Amino acid sequence: MDHRPGFVVSPWSIGWSGWDTARQAHRESTLALSNGHIGWRGTLDEGDPCEVAGAYLNGVFEEHPMPYAEDGYGYPEHGESIVNVPDGKVIRLLVGDDPLDVREGTLDHHGQTLDLLSGTLHRDLRWTSPSGQSVEVRSTRMVSLTRRSVAAIDYVVTAIDGPVDVTVLSEIVADEPLPDVHPDERVMAPLRDPFELVSRSADGERATLFHRTRRSRIGVAVVMDHVIEGHGATTETTTADTLARTTVRVRLAGGDSIRLTKFVGHESSASLTDAALRDRAEAAVATAVQLGWEALASEQRAFLADFWQVADVVVEGSPRLQQAARFALFQVLQAAARAEVRPVPGKGLTGPGYEGHAFWDAETFMLPVLTYTIPQAARGALQWRHATLDAARERADQLHLAGAAFPWRTISGRECSGYWPAGTVAFHINADIADAVMRYVRATADTDFERAFGLEILVETARLWQALGRWDPHGVFHIDGVTGPDEYSALVDDNLYTNLMAQRNLRAAALVARRQPTRARELGVGDDEIAAWELAAGAIAEPFDAERGVHQQAAGFTERERWDFAGTSPDQYPLQDHFPYFDLYRKQVVKQADLVLALQLAHESFTEEEMARAFEYYEELTVRDSSLSAASQAVVAAWTGHLQRAVDYATEAATIDLDDLRGDIDDGLHIAALAGAWTALVSGFGGMKDGERGLEFTPRLGAPISRLKFGIRVGGHALRVEVTPAAATYTLDAGPDFAIRHYGGAATLQAAKPLTLGIPPLRSPQPAPAPPPGRTPDDVRAQAKG
Amino acid sequence: MDHRPGFVVSPWSIGWSGWDTARQAHRESTLALSNGHIGWRGTLDEGDPCEVAGAYLNGVFEEHPMPYAEDGYGYPEHGESIVNVPDGKVIRLLVGDDPLDVREGTLDHHGQTLDLLSGTLHRDLRWTSPSGQSVEVRSTRMVSLTRRSVAAIDYVVTAIDGPVDVTVLSEIVADEPLPDVHPDERVMAPLRDPFELVSRSADGERATLFHRTRRSRIGVAVVMDHVIEGHGATTETTTADTLARTTVRVRLAGGDSIRLTKFVGHESSASLTDAALRDRAEAAVATAVQLGWEALASEQRAFLADFWQVADVVVEGSPRLQQAARFALFQVLQAAARAEVRPVPGKGLTGPGYEGHAFWDAETFMLPVLTYTIPQAARGALQWRHATLDAARERADQLHLAGAAFPWRTISGRECSGYWPAGTVAFHINADIADAVMRYVRATADTDFERAFGLEILVETARLWQALGRWDPHGVFHIDGVTGPDEYSALVDDNLYTNLMAQRNLRAAALVARRQPTRARELGVGDDEIAAWELAAGAIAEPFDAERGVHQQAAGFTERERWDFAGTSPDQYPLQDHFPYFDLYRKQVVKQADLVLALQLAHESFTEEEMARAFEYYEELTVRDSSLSAASQAVVAAWTGHLQRAVDYATEAATIDLDDLRGDIDDGLHIAALAGAWTALVSGFGGMKDGERGLEFTPRLGAPISRLKFGIRVGGHALRVEVTPAAATYTLDAGPDFAIRHYGGAATLQAAKPLTLGIPPLRSPQPAPAPPPGRTPDDVRAQAKG
Repeated sequence: MDHRPGFVVSPWSIGWSGWDTARQAHRESTLALSNGHIGWRGTLDEGDPCEVAGAYLNGVFEEHPMPYAEDGYGYPEHGESIVNVPDGKVIRLLVGDDPLDVREGTLDHHGQTLDLLSGTLHRDLRWTSPSGQSVEVRSTRMVSLTRRSVAAIDYVVTAIDGPVDVTVLSEIVADEPLPDVHPDERVMAPLRDPFELVSRSADGERATLFHRTRRSRIGVAVVMDHVIEGHGATTETTTADTLARTTVRVRLAGGDSIRLTKFVGHESSASLTDAALRDRAEAAVATAVQLGWEALASEQRAFLADFWQVADVVVEGSPRLQQAARFALFQVLQAAARAEVRPVPGKGLTGPGYEGHAFWDAETFMLPVLTYTIPQAARGALQWRHATLDAARERADQLHLAGAAFPWRTISGRECSGYWPAGTVAFHINADIADAVMRYVRATADTDFERAFGLEILVETARLWQALGRWDPHGVFHIDGVTGPDEYSALVDDNLYTNLMAQRNLRAAALVARRQPTRARELGVGDDEIAAWELAAGAIAEPFDAERGVHQQAAGFTERERWDFAGTSPDQYPLQDHFPYFDLYRKQVVKQADLVLALQLAHESFTEEEMARAFEYYEELTVRDSSLSAASQAVVAAWTGHLQRAVDYATEAATIDLDDLRGDIDDGLHIAALAGAWTALVSGFGGMKDGERGLEFTPRLGAPISRLKFGIRVGGHALRVEVTPAAATYTLDAGPDFAIRHYGGAATLQAAKPLTLGIPPLRSPQPAPAPPPGRTPDDVRAQAKG
Repeated sequence: MDHRPGFVVSPWSIGWSGWDTARQAHRESTLALSNGHIGWRGTLDEGDPCEVAGAYLNGVFEEHPMPYAEDGYGYPEHGESIVNVPDGKVIRLLVGDDPLDVREGTLDHHGQTLDLLSGTLHRDLRWTSPSGQSVEVRSTRMVSLTRRSVAAIDYVVTAIDGPVDVTVLSEIVADEPLPDVHPDERVMAPLRDPFELVSRSADGERATLFHRTRRSRIGVAVVMDHVIEGHGATTETTTADTLARTTVRVRLAGGDSIRLTKFVGHESSASLTDAALRDRAEAAVATAVQLGWEALASEQRAFLADFWQVADVVVEGSPRLQQAARFALFQVLQAAARAEVRPVPGKGLTGPGYEGHAFWDAETFMLPVLTYTIPQAARGALQWRHATLDAARERADQLHLAGAAFPWRTISGRECSGYWPAGTVAFHINADIADAVMRYVRATADTDFERAFGLEILVETARLWQALGRWDPHGVFHIDGVTGPDEYSALVDDNLYTNLMAQRNLRAAALVARRQPTRARELGVGDDEIAAWELAAGAIAEPFDAERGVHQQAAGFTERERWDFAGTSPDQYPLQDHFPYFDLYRKQVVKQADLVLALQLAHESFTEEEMARAFEYYEELTVRDSSLSAASQAVVAAWTGHLQRAVDYATEAATIDLDDLRGDIDDGLHIAALAGAWTALVSGFGGMKDGERGLEFTPRLGAPISRLKFGIRVGGHALRVEVTPAAATYTLDAGPDFAIRHYGGAATLQAAKPLTLGIPPLRSPQPAPAPPPGRTPDDVRAQAKG
């Protein structure tokens, strides 16, 4: 077992001990707490040392100019970057005159543990100051999953011996630096000092800082209040433009403690009045203070117990994968639980990577997990997309298209991509969103959502495809000049993934428009339009290489020159950092699952044989330079019987951040890859396939997994699945009978009556095709170590 | 006849009268003087009013950062921009206390005339100051074609009546502003104040300013000296960091004059010592002063007489086209005559457009003209390319290719293109350079050049093609993922133009390597490499649509969706300003001659029928949003018998700047389009085709041209051709017998013995195919007026 990153392998926690400056960013990212609204990186209470400071509020960004060496029509003029909001998690400590600093004095003991059951980050340390005075500090940090605006810290300092003067500075720090997220100073300048103060106030141990971003004009109120338990403590609270501080001074006798409980409220809005925003944040804190720490902690534990009860994935046979799988699921939950009508960024709220933007990752990778484990979070994310429809319609109009063109990357809903061949033309994001709508509706039967939000998204995206495509003289519908998921291809015709997803999009729009005729009429959808969608969907091009007997990632793809993998050295990955785009684009080399993702998401479009052949063909070309690849490869590897490969890829996805496989952990976590780990287990080994025909399961485990248990929420009820090598047991907790298929055979589940079905033996297992030289999961892991 | 732009139609001059602020930039650009080393825009002597100040030295640029919204491997980090060098053409005049200003007082008369025979810009004006004092000013400005570093102005002020106090301030102004050539302030900042002073000095009426650019470290010495004729004049010369000034004061009686002759010397270098540079500039001025104005002017006239004697193109039947044709040829001459081992920028030295960069324009459009009219200028331009081979080899290496990859746009030789789909991958520039080498060698038989410079360019570019291409299993050699001349397509496979030019490049390298075996061995060229070039050249893909019976601009091009021309309104041109690239790229719409340029340059590769069919097909798709298009369309229109269309396109190319057809005249002239006008006449109506088989002529005039006379230099001798509707007469001035073909038939020219050959009747003239709606030459001209 690989202990390199220093955390302890344990089923329900990530525990690090000691202190290692080289691993600091790793801790800050993996120990991040979030509820989807607030994000607090796992920095030390005392703020220093710190690799990447991070306190974020979902949707709080600053605008910056987008620079181009050569301008072009439709290039976005303004970008958006996540910024650090005033950081309420800072609690500095002075022991006598010595500030607590893990790098100075003597760190007798130090531990940080992220607890996946309590949803808290614990820290305990024992430290002897340079002057020789020893203290114990125990802190527990929480970002509340039940109270969206609230985070809290329970902070206890104990004197080991002798009287010691202790000063605790509990702060809101409003000028924490953002790392350089862009090399261009013109971009960075507005991000260095994004806030202007609107107001500040202090009252007792409570303080409020109210700022507004200078360009994007988003108001941010951060409020802290404290409960202090400790004999003889004096307090003072002050504010400045970029700082609020409550100073607690106390002399502790040996064995005595001071306990400071800090409640921090956060609100942000571009539209609410200053007063309303401030009042909301202050009210949230007042309620939290009234509840008290224990009640908040208890709510948190209950929320998580409820979540894990259904959603937990049990992986027997690999403690490391077990831990990673739960960590992954927990981080996906954190990224979205209370995002509500906000985006779910690629990094969640765990770091400044990708400037805090949301991509197709949300719908394609995270929403499947959320839909089946915490459907209200999926609903919120889709409502956010719906709320950005006007911007998407404007973008479509600017591009002389119809309907809506959702942005490739954004915070507000406006397109922020500065490289159009892998941004603007990655139109598949529109079908990905439509697909997420349909998955959510199928899983929840939430017809209110379908009517109020879903249909409009489906209709506007269907209109986009209709405008983008063209009919050839032979009656085939083509989508030319787009970019699919694989970013080592661009501007291709008939990307199979895009076409199949567009087909689903068009059919979904037709289906739901028929199901919601009143709303459809309001949206101007007539029978002719529905018929046109169905016609296009039925005639869409599906490029296939008859000679090689394999589907083509795009028209002509399999006839392209093959990348010279043998002549590429391990240190030339990721290829995009070492080779020009044009050379990648014109050759057969795949950055990330593209056709393989089509095999996964549009599985109904392929026979078993086609799937096996395609997986084999593309496996040899796929270098996994994107974190979004391994999970999809795991799923299809499992489906095609390459179970060892599937385990390796699932492990790669699940441990991407715990093992820092990509060396970019300071940017934040790879939430979509982590979500993919759940999908690799549930859809790969659990064999769960969703689609218009309902849920099907074709479970099959790969060694060393000896047993897999997972649960999903469907139609408001919980369905738990337990898989062993020989059989699968399906248990519906309650509700009406529920039809599934198991290896093609129909089965009906009845509430509370477990149904066990045998797993057929694997037909003629084939040796797994080889990934490109130097790109096996072991190679990638070895490179990460180097 | 259209007199809108205000100049007088005249065979040997461009004469403007009066003053029109709205036409100021038009005058400044069209009246620019240059010798390819120095460029002086046609601004007023007194500097104000001024639209775009402009004094340039070829190769003097400042570096700036290249901004990208999203960075990528191999993106150039530094750009280069032409800057204003210290401007020695400023002569301000005070009449009494009133500064001469055409907007104030009374402008009794004002004329500016560019004289194509004397190579000078004359100005005369009569002005009555606000105080009521009248003067006449006559100035003649010259940038010497015989003395590379020298420009001069003969400036005469005459008092009309009564005594008048006249003050003449003759200056070098070192801080003239550059217009905003880029929207990004980060790019512009270094260009606003590019120079630091190294030294300055004054002695008598002579002054020297020596500056160096801050980043690119290029030294620039500008020296002025004066000869003053006028009774009782006093002078004083002073210098400051950004200004040298000679002040001349005199009281003129009625009818008396003061004459100031100003000689300005210019030197620049990034490698010479300060002292050497300054001494050269001062020596050049000293020599000029010693020669005196009349001798300089006489040299200039003689140089031009020599040039025109052979190069003049006589167009009888259209005085307007006659004027435009001579203007065009004169400006091409000016852009390159004394550039020597420097680039020939797209705008020459007439304005700041394209940041002063040189493109493929030079080799593909300008060098054919220079090669046949002033071959030493073509040699200099090609020697410059040779001098940049190291940078091109480094670029090829960075792109993991072999040989040399010349930059798409540059001043120094480094790639400065910030949009790689229309920059880096427009690899055809390498073949264009090779083609220019071969044309020059064929026309001049300059074997020294071939050995010392030509072969290395041919070899290194052939190596690039060998590395770029790939063999398919059927033995066809493909060049994938490149961009051809048409900038409304990108990243295509087997662009026919690129492939045919690469074929010529490979064959040329093989031919010359065999002809220069010693030098070839030095360059590491063995028999195997030569054989490989020939093999690739012989197997190169030539995409052809068998169904439609037409060549394809690139593989699959004719199967693409056709642009919705009918749905595009006239104000949506140029399309690139109104539609996103992706939509242009995926449809059949052609910005500029691409396949049609292949028809012109690689004419041997097409049958007459294929050419006719291809011209017809692409004519309907070509919107001429590039100034580089009309001339090539004119040539092929003439060759395919569409003579009226050919006249229209030739006229469009020739008058592009005189009539400001593109509305961007303040950027400078379109030198390549002007060069194309010569080609349209000589190669189009003159029917001159050069190639491995020697010179062929298939002359045929289009109405209203009743007679066409032109001359070319071949093998050191002059060949003059006179075409009437019925016959062509070929006259070789001297030298050995010279073989040509006339309409396929061999003919031998003997010195001083005119040979007249009949022109066969046009076989079955077809109606010309229609350009896209709204894009006929008349439409384009009408739009320009609007």
